[in-house]
Amino acid sequence: MAYIDLPENLPGIRGLMAFRPDVAKHLNELAEELLRSENSLSRGERELIATHVSYLNDCFYCQNAHQALAGYYLECGFDPLDEIKANPEASNLPPKMKALLKIAASVQKGGLNVSQDQIDIAKSAGATDRELHDTVLIAASFCMFNRYVDGLGTEAPLDREYYRNRAETRAKEGYSNYDPKN
Amino acid sequence: MAYIDLPENLPGIRGLMAFRPDVAKHLNELAEELLRSENSLSRGERELIATHVSYLNDCFYCQNAHQALAGYYLECGFDPLDEIKANPEASNLPPKMKALLKIAASVQKGGLNVSQDQIDIAKSAGATDRELHDTVLIAASFCMFNRYVDGLGTEAPLDREYYRNRAETRAKEGYSNYDPKN
Repeated sequence: MAYIDLPENLPGIRGLMAFRPDVAKHLNELAEELLRSENSLSRGERELIATHVSYLNDCFYCQNAHQALAGYYLECGFDPLDEIKANPEASNLPPKMKALLKIAASVQKGGLNVSQDQIDIAKSAGATDRELHDTVLIAASFCMFNRYVDGLGTEAPLDREYYRNRAETRAKEGYSNYDPKN
Repeated sequence: MAYIDLPENLPGIRGLMAFRPDVAKHLNELAEELLRSENSLSRGERELIATHVSYLNDCFYCQNAHQALAGYYLECGFDPLDEIKANPEASNLPPKMKALLKIAASVQKGGLNVSQDQIDIAKSAGATDRELHDTVLIAASFCMFNRYVDGLGTEAPLDREYYRNRAETRAKEGYSNYDPKN
């Protein structure tokens, strides 16, 4: 049970967004801009960064919700991302994505962990300043979202079908104007 | 020097906000809602939570910028907060604030570190659900802001007068519609 009195049957961040809609609006607009707006990183790639960071933060709700979205956008489905989110280095992702995910993992530990060397490797693999910026901020924002969801003790459905089943609708509707009751 | 090519002479988050104004808008609206809107926690108390978390994340720019704002709102000035941000438990803050800062410190480590025991102590000291919610999200959001600022290697003025001198104007203008060039 969550640490505060939240609307029922709204797991994870949904109950929090229903509890505090004035804040939810800004969180959703931030997510829309970072994860879905025009970008040289695809929506799938950006959701994968979110999934990897949420995995590293051990946030069950976020890692499954965003894994389902990444699988939908990348058209690889949910299951292959179990291994990729845990160890992107061992995957067949292109070098640029591997380098960006390494930077995201450093951000997860703390901003000062990102090194010039990691940046140089990502730039050599073709990453632009905008892609580096967005990778760092997506990773940083999930250090917020994950702490928000877990720090208030929200419940997460353990059956991963819940997340799989929601992905297509969530992808079609986007984050802006998200109604947490849906 | 920052890891990406940012506008000159805009330290900390200011250069990042000038680089990516579409994102900055949402970050500033989130900060306004969390740190300045109507709330039973005062602006000073909320800036103190931001300062404590930024101290724990070792983010020089954020901890000084928000310490200056906390000192302005709390009318205690900048210097006494050096000790309080490092060890709120040893301060003469009221029990509710001490309990909320303990929760914020757990959020900084990771959301799963917050315990029912910490929540119970805060509730016994008079913390409401809304105050618990906002404390957790303020702490979580500074885990984002700190990582954003440091993860991209931005520069921070080492002379703390820079932060002291900006506090009053920043407090009067607020976060919404913030122009990073000012």
